[in-house]
Amino acid sequence: VIADAILSALQGDMTLDGLKSHKPLTGRRAIVTAGPTREPIDPVRYLSNHSSGRQGYAIAQALADLGAEVELVTGPTSIATPLGTKNTTIETALEMRAAVEAALPADIFVSVAAVADWRPAERTSKKTQKPVDGPAPLQLIENPDILRSVCESDKRPELVVGFAAETHDVVELARAKRLRKGCDWIVANDVSGDVMGGQENEMIIVTETSEDRLPRQSKQAAAQALARKIANHFGEI
Amino acid sequence: VIADAILSALQGDMTLDGLKSHKPLTGRRAIVTAGPTREPIDPVRYLSNHSSGRQGYAIAQALADLGAEVELVTGPTSIATPLGTKNTTIETALEMRAAVEAALPADIFVSVAAVADWRPAERTSKKTQKPVDGPAPLQLIENPDILRSVCESDKRPELVVGFAAETHDVVELARAKRLRKGCDWIVANDVSGDVMGGQENEMIIVTETSEDRLPRQSKQAAAQALARKIANHFGEI
Repeated sequence: VIADAILSALQGDMTLDGLKSHKPLTGRRAIVTAGPTREPIDPVRYLSNHSSGRQGYAIAQALADLGAEVELVTGPTSIATPLGTKNTTIETALEMRAAVEAALPADIFVSVAAVADWRPAERTSKKTQKPVDGPAPLQLIENPDILRSVCESDKRPELVVGFAAETHDVVELARAKRLRKGCDWIVANDVSGDVMGGQENEMIIVTETSEDRLPRQSKQAAAQALARKIANHFGEI
Repeated sequence: VIADAILSALQGDMTLDGLKSHKPLTGRRAIVTAGPTREPIDPVRYLSNHSSGRQGYAIAQALADLGAEVELVTGPTSIATPLGTKNTTIETALEMRAAVEAALPADIFVSVAAVADWRPAERTSKKTQKPVDGPAPLQLIENPDILRSVCESDKRPELVVGFAAETHDVVELARAKRLRKGCDWIVANDVSGDVMGGQENEMIIVTETSEDRLPRQSKQAAAQALARKIANHFGEI
């Protein structure tokens, strides 16, 4: 359909407005975070999580396909980054915060990354030797809350969407998270199965006034549905 | 050269012994461990390390290329497993120990995996919610020492080779590790640069009587050098 529209526009029998209707987010700037963060314990060991980056990459791609200028800030993954987006790879939550701050301002912020809540309190520059009398507890400190700080920023994007990956009480925790973070929408995911790292997702989009349950579908299809809902929010569909 | 030898053998102008000289480890069974382990904190979070699996996979491949029957026990990696080896993928150190025990007996054990020294003392079945008053320290317990238990096993392979990835005092720590574990050789690696996860390696093979410093080279070339030294140990080259 888009190829046809481009062809028609090139042939002069369609206006630029007609072409733009297929790219409803043209002129909008979006920042998407994706993947896990890795929080170093020493040069060899780290704390991380099972996020594959697939859902975030698919959302970045879907927003770009609708015409948005997309900046993707991603933790380490083993999958290919999307085409048509600006990609920055980081390791830690602190690096992700810095990259997101550098990417602002934007109209849309979609926080899909599974940012580690905590990081080791100390990072040793040498690999820790195994102590003879057993391991000491790993002291943890809280990572910056990137979603909340974007919401509280002077440069707060018009639409801020967070994700809540939970294994239980999914919608209740998502509603609470929306209020706590100050974001507009929370996409709730039940990750008690193989969603995190898997190929499919069943999203529930929680807004101030609604809960939109999408069917279980591929992460690509779910991303396209979310991107259309975002375009709709901006009154462009 | 091998293809030529096979061709010659097929043409009948070479004996089976002549062919076997190119496959000096024919009839020998090897177990190789590779990659990191992942130690779950909850269904989403884990402890791991930067091992890519590249060096271990290359050694499994090099031993198979010399005719050994190779069983590779690997943690999660993002690279393709070797051809011509039996591959078992595990996540945790406990799973790796079980897989190695199941794979014994063998003539050769090469422990390349970066097995996590410690694992979280408790693994929760639900994703832990972020506590309001900051994170509690993560209690750790020691993982089984797979290399040492193979060395102490009734089924101890004739040749047991460990790896020591260190960021400092590399050879000293390797010598100490050889004695502590009871293995025959330790391959020392300096991972203070990008070796862990990188494409090249500079091995120092520490035996009871010698230290064999190999040049910095691709992990494939280093693996082939180690495999030849192993074949030589068995008097087959």
